[in-house]
Amino acid sequence: MTGPLKVALLGCGTVGSAVLRVLQDQAGDLGARIGRPVEVAGVAVRRPAHHPDVPAHLLTTDAHALVTRDDVDLVVEVIGGIEPARSLMLAAFEAGKSVVSANKALLAEDGVALHAAAAKAGVDLYYEAAVAGAIPILRPLRESLVGDQLSRVVGIVNGTTNYILSRMAETGAGFGEALAEATELGYAEADPTADVDGFDAAAKAAILASLAFHTPVSAVDVYREGISTVTATDVARAAEIGCTVKLLAICERVAGEDGDSVAVRVHPAMIPTSHPLASVGGAFNAVFVEAAAAGQLMFYGQGAGGEPTASAVLGDLVAVARSRVTGAPGPGVTGYANLALRPMAETPTRYHVSLDVADKPGVLAAVAQEFARHEVSISTVRQTGRGDAATLVIVTHSAPDAALSATIAALREMPAVRGVTSVLRVEGLS
Amino acid sequence: MTGPLKVALLGCGTVGSAVLRVLQDQAGDLGARIGRPVEVAGVAVRRPAHHPDVPAHLLTTDAHALVTRDDVDLVVEVIGGIEPARSLMLAAFEAGKSVVSANKALLAEDGVALHAAAAKAGVDLYYEAAVAGAIPILRPLRESLVGDQLSRVVGIVNGTTNYILSRMAETGAGFGEALAEATELGYAEADPTADVDGFDAAAKAAILASLAFHTPVSAVDVYREGISTVTATDVARAAEIGCTVKLLAICERVAGEDGDSVAVRVHPAMIPTSHPLASVGGAFNAVFVEAAAAGQLMFYGQGAGGEPTASAVLGDLVAVARSRVTGAPGPGVTGYANLALRPMAETPTRYHVSLDVADKPGVLAAVAQEFARHEVSISTVRQTGRGDAATLVIVTHSAPDAALSATIAALREMPAVRGVTSVLRVEGLS
Repeated sequence: MTGPLKVALLGCGTVGSAVLRVLQDQAGDLGARIGRPVEVAGVAVRRPAHHPDVPAHLLTTDAHALVTRDDVDLVVEVIGGIEPARSLMLAAFEAGKSVVSANKALLAEDGVALHAAAAKAGVDLYYEAAVAGAIPILRPLRESLVGDQLSRVVGIVNGTTNYILSRMAETGAGFGEALAEATELGYAEADPTADVDGFDAAAKAAILASLAFHTPVSAVDVYREGISTVTATDVARAAEIGCTVKLLAICERVAGEDGDSVAVRVHPAMIPTSHPLASVGGAFNAVFVEAAAAGQLMFYGQGAGGEPTASAVLGDLVAVARSRVTGAPGPGVTGYANLALRPMAETPTRYHVSLDVADKPGVLAAVAQEFARHEVSISTVRQTGRGDAATLVIVTHSAPDAALSATIAALREMPAVRGVTSVLRVEGLS
Repeated sequence: MTGPLKVALLGCGTVGSAVLRVLQDQAGDLGARIGRPVEVAGVAVRRPAHHPDVPAHLLTTDAHALVTRDDVDLVVEVIGGIEPARSLMLAAFEAGKSVVSANKALLAEDGVALHAAAAKAGVDLYYEAAVAGAIPILRPLRESLVGDQLSRVVGIVNGTTNYILSRMAETGAGFGEALAEATELGYAEADPTADVDGFDAAAKAAILASLAFHTPVSAVDVYREGISTVTATDVARAAEIGCTVKLLAICERVAGEDGDSVAVRVHPAMIPTSHPLASVGGAFNAVFVEAAAAGQLMFYGQGAGGEPTASAVLGDLVAVARSRVTGAPGPGVTGYANLALRPMAETPTRYHVSLDVADKPGVLAAVAQEFARHEVSISTVRQTGRGDAATLVIVTHSAPDAALSATIAALREMPAVRGVTSVLRVEGLS
């Protein structure tokens, strides 16, 4: 058992080639840390001709044959997407190989089945790179905080949207303009839908919530709003109340009369500039955790890019290789708590609303009455007059999200309300 | 193998009683996460009568008998100090029990021997709680970042000194006044030596450096300066150059002609207010990490207190319990790299110096000449006149620490220098 451990690499794009480079350059250190040498058995790609930097004898187009090869010990999956990644992963487990993956979409869609397959085969499935790039967050949730009771995990987990929102705040630009700049600089992809509409963040939120609350959560369970409707006015209004706008992935354990439940959502929100997440700028990521005993924690770093993601993949690779050496898989993922999932309509949130209203007696009373009718209590109101019109800026207390959105719909119908100029949820206000 | 895992608790002070409370209150959750129930076998204390809240049948004064009891599976050591903690830990290993500890002093003094004893016995030794309380930092270093090459770990790891320095910055108070306030509020102990003189931070620095660089580092290897010599003038001067004063634990890998070496030091330093560590206020802790692939990371949270420390202890307890269930210990700590330790005199640092000088021609030239004579290059000089005197504020480029301190000594002897009013190292300036 002292020969080298052999790694099959599936995919050789930005992340894959960074992984391959480190595996070759740092082989000595990695072997010392694992307790056994490690080497690359093969690299599966679709078009070998596109990879002139990879030694030709390592390249193959037959990924399935590679993962099931007898001499392969460990599989690194950095293809992304659902298929063929899922089939390859399942084939690897069946052949007794542990898998390291960076595949958030697949883990968020099918994590339960994949963990079950890994457990049945007695092998490891690790995927630190799937959430927040280089930032160690999944292992801390799985292991470091496993003796605590988590109440909230709130993350800025998508660099593209964070860059766009940061630029909107810095320059006063609208969403379209900031997106165009992000695309030009390479921070946004040609088709930015997955990032801008929150799909990427929702997959990561599902993974975070599953681990934090020991409860299976899939991407489809996550309420999702993107940032394409965030306006320059929203960003300006946020600044006026000492807040900044961020796309947040929010995983909460909510106490209820019939037991605790889990609410998972992704949407833009105003947060106070004093909140530790508020200063996470540009393409950085951060995850804020609240736990019963630990209190408040934050994890901060680079959320994307080939090298940072490779760092997370290689950390996992050393872990599963050590398991291979000791013969015992690492801790699995438990869904034992299996808490109910709370729909967005019943999830408590707070809203910020800006209204243009007629500046005449009784308007504020009528508006306040509309909130009261929906059992939404108001935290603060600020009124600024200009001519025969006035602006009302209202921040509510916490109420079920459905009551808040029904209030907004009702306000839009009020004759005295000339326009609802900004609506955004507010998080982290005391 | 389905009976409960039994835990021996050594010590029942602030941390120990928080651990005991969670072990009892959350037994169901912990058992589900481990895969086997867990229960307390006994609690060793010096004076049973001082612990009326602990069930009498659990209390014992014979810690040695408790850790070696046949039915005990795991040992939690929260006594602190060197002895009897070390003997008890070694007895536990010899009896085949894994140990979770919060004992920074012991791990920093004798980590190599303790790890060797644990490895020989095939059991686990974890001590996340020893550094930065609830913040998961040791497991991320040991596991998440184990596939990367770390270059720097810089921590604010002592809450007492951070509170004192924060108050000095907020109020303009001197060290003595801020210490008195911290003592009154319970942030500083009656004998604050361990915190104020940097011993606590030095122990934590030794542990961080050992894990980050796979190199044995003991507390005695750490260069150490406390904060009792930091003056209100130092704090004011820092603000003038856009910096704030923090007590930093700095672990660096330094490239040299005869190979890389490791430099570990604890001292107050000015850091730019834009640095992520600068906004870590009051009793919070944070650890900033730089790695080749991952880039910059930061871990932030509560660094002390019974509950936060208990969170870290319990996370480790679940980990070692899972190892017990699978029959394989977790990854050990490797010192394979065994890099040389670089003395402080040869470690590159930067200084900030404020001088009161006579305001006449040639003084700046003479001062600059003194720096040049010691081969210290100057980054910025600011001169402000007041009557026949002037103040020179100088920030150097990086130079060996011995050259910098020799320069300061020489400046003090110069006739034109009326006084050296502030000297502090500077970190994190570009």
